[in-house]
This record gives sequence, C-alpha cells and structure tokens, in this order.
Amino acid sequence: MSESENSKQQRHKKRMQARKEIVDSGIANALEERGIAIVYTGDGKGKTTAAVGTVTRALGYGYKVVVGQFIKGVWECGEKNLLSQLDPEIYPLQWHEMGTDFTWETQDFEADKAAALALWEKLKAALADESVYLVVMDELTYALNYKWLDKTEVVAAIQNRPREQSVIITGRGAKQYLMDVADTVTEMKSHKHAFENGVSARKGVEW
Amino acid sequence: MSESENSKQQRHKKRMQARKEIVDSGIANALEERGIAIVYTGDGKGKTTAAVGTVTRALGYGYKVVVGQFIKGVWECGEKNLLSQLDPEIYPLQWHEMGTDFTWETQDFEADKAAALALWEKLKAALADESVYLVVMDELTYALNYKWLDKTEVVAAIQNRPREQSVIITGRGAKQYLMDVADTVTEMKSHKHAFENGVSARKGVEW
Repeated sequence: MSESENSKQQRHKKRMQARKEIVDSGIANALEERGIAIVYTGDGKGKTTAAVGTVTRALGYGYKVVVGQFIKGVWECGEKNLLSQLDPEIYPLQWHEMGTDFTWETQDFEADKAAALALWEKLKAALADESVYLVVMDELTYALNYKWLDKTEVVAAIQNRPREQSVIITGRGAKQYLMDVADTVTEMKSHKHAFENGVSARKGVEW
Repeated sequence: MSESENSKQQRHKKRMQARKEIVDSGIANALEERGIAIVYTGDGKGKTTAAVGTVTRALGYGYKVVVGQFIKGVWECGEKNLLSQLDPEIYPLQWHEMGTDFTWETQDFEADKAAALALWEKLKAALADESVYLVVMDELTYALNYKWLDKTEVVAAIQNRPREQSVIITGRGAKQYLMDVADTVTEMKSHKHAFENGVSARKGVEW
C-alpha cells in the first residue's frame, strides 16, 4: 500500500471511529422500549409511501396492523393489491377506507364527515386494542383540518393507546397539537416533483 | 338544514370546487408517460421506508423490482422477511446487499469500497435491463459521498436507463448532481425523533 493510500485508509478509519462513537452513545442512551407515534407531514412525495413501507415491515414480523385511509378510499393502488393477497393468518392486516371518492370530487361536507366519523370509530377501537401493534391513520390531517373529527378526542385516543402500540399519522398541514403528541415528526419537503414538469403520476411508483 | 349549516355546506363546496379545478388542470397538463427518478434525502425518518413502500406498490402490479442496499446489508428487517416470502412468479423481486456490516463498524475503506463496487455492478446491469420496472438504490448517497463509486458513471447509468424504468435513490446528503438527474426530490426533514428522547428504535416500525 502506498503512503497516500495508507493515510486515506487511516483518515477513513478515524472518521468511521468517530461516527461509531456517536452512534454507540446514542444507542446506549436510547433504552426505553415502547410503541412510538410518528407524524409524516409536508408537501413532498413519500408520506403515505413511508406508511406503506412500515406496514410491510411490521407485517414481516407477524405483527397485527390496522390501516385507515381518510381520503384515498377508492383509488386503485399497488400496495393494496399485494397486501390484500397475503395470508391473514401469517400477516394480520385490516385495511379500512372512507369509502367515498376524493374529497374535492364529492364536494359534500356532510357525507364526507359521516364517512370520516365511521372510519374514525374503527380506528378508535384499534387504538384501544392491545393486540394491535401498529395503527396507520393515512391523511388524518385532512379529517382534522376539515373539522370532520374532534381533535381533543383524537389526541386523547392516541395518548391513551396501549404502551406497546405504535401509530403513524400522515398528511399535509399537521398542526402543532399533532406534532406535540408524536415522538417522531418528519416533514417531507418537496424540492421538485415530476408532476410540475408534465409527467403523469407513475403507476406502480406513485400509486 | 339551518341557514348557517347551509352556508357552511356552500363554503365547503366552493373550496372543494376551487381545489378540484387546480387538481384537474394539473392532471390535464401532466400527460407524459415514462419512468421517473426519485431522490429521498434529508436527516429525517422515512427515506428507506418510503422506498420499501414503493417496492410493495410496484410488486402489487407484478412489476419487476431490483433493490440494492449500500449500507444496511446485514441488518434484520421486517420488510425483507415479508418480501422474501412472496412467490417470485407473481412478485418478481431481486434484493441485493453490500454484504458487509454497517460502515462505521467495519472501518475498512478498501473492503467497503470493493463491496460497494460489486453491488454497483448488479445495479448497473438492472439500469440497462428493459424488463426491470423499478430500481431502488438505498443509501446510494453514502457510496457516492465516500467516493466508493464514480459519480459520472452512476449519473450516466441513471440518465441512460430504459424510458419506462423508474429509479429511487435514498440517503442523507444527496449532492446537487443527484438532484439534477431526478424528476422528484423530497427532503425528509426531521422535526423531532424518538431516539433523541431515549426511546429505542422500534422493531417492526423502524427496522
């Protein structure tokens, strides 16, 4: 090995050593084992998609998962095709939808609200069920921001859920009270989007 | 219906109508059908998870998917448990790993680089294969930023891929040349993380 290769190797080793120490000390301090609440918000791609990824992950360990989608009810999507084909004995998944079309298609506040409340009742039951490991409330922020649901009731149900249960909430415009109840908040910030350059939403990638 | 309920209903209808017009005009202008390149970067949770969600989605339509993970090779994870159990005739997935431990565990630049290059060769072949619908290069930014891979070669392979193929690149610290080659760039921005408050990474949620 030449001298410069050797010094590069040494620099790399030193940098990785420093990084390992930081990671190790973080791991040593993060010892509390319990379910967590995650909020994925912001205007960028990837919020629902990250929730779907987590559903796949949790099911991979055989954990029981309940998903409720507040907006995208009637859309075809690839993940539903796959996940609905799984053996429910091995991969226990419940998938609930609002059962109406996209909100700005229906334009009927009372019908939308009733559908949202019916979905919320199912999710509220899941949030009180110790056998459920993960509850996903996809696009919940819309249901809250349109005032279809009572935010005090939603926050209380999240806070009082079983200790081992995790929750994922997705949607644009998450308000501070949702961020406060979460352990982890990621804002998906759009830097650019294919849609803006005239490219259609891609089957199997975006839906 | 009372007058105030009626006016609330009218306001809702007007707002939804306005939104529908915006969405419809966007859809009318986004007509180009082709594969897209997505970059998920930033320091927040959800980058790899969103990639996993997209893999589930694409497989749900029976599309052929190739995944390469540049860093997380030997980690156990729930999604791998599930996805590796699927019938490959129905869900054609190839999943490649670097086959070394986490980079800051090994601290051996040459071994890491060789493992990254071997993985890159597989991904380069996928990026030239018309039968592959989606290529995921998880944590590619590390492999580029550590200079394990030649960025000119990587960028060219992404740009020259088949027109119908989509690509997802994940990892912190994506440089401008990667953003430039992408159609969609989302920055996962961390607002808070359970880890910082002493909560362990949650099985079935974070891995």
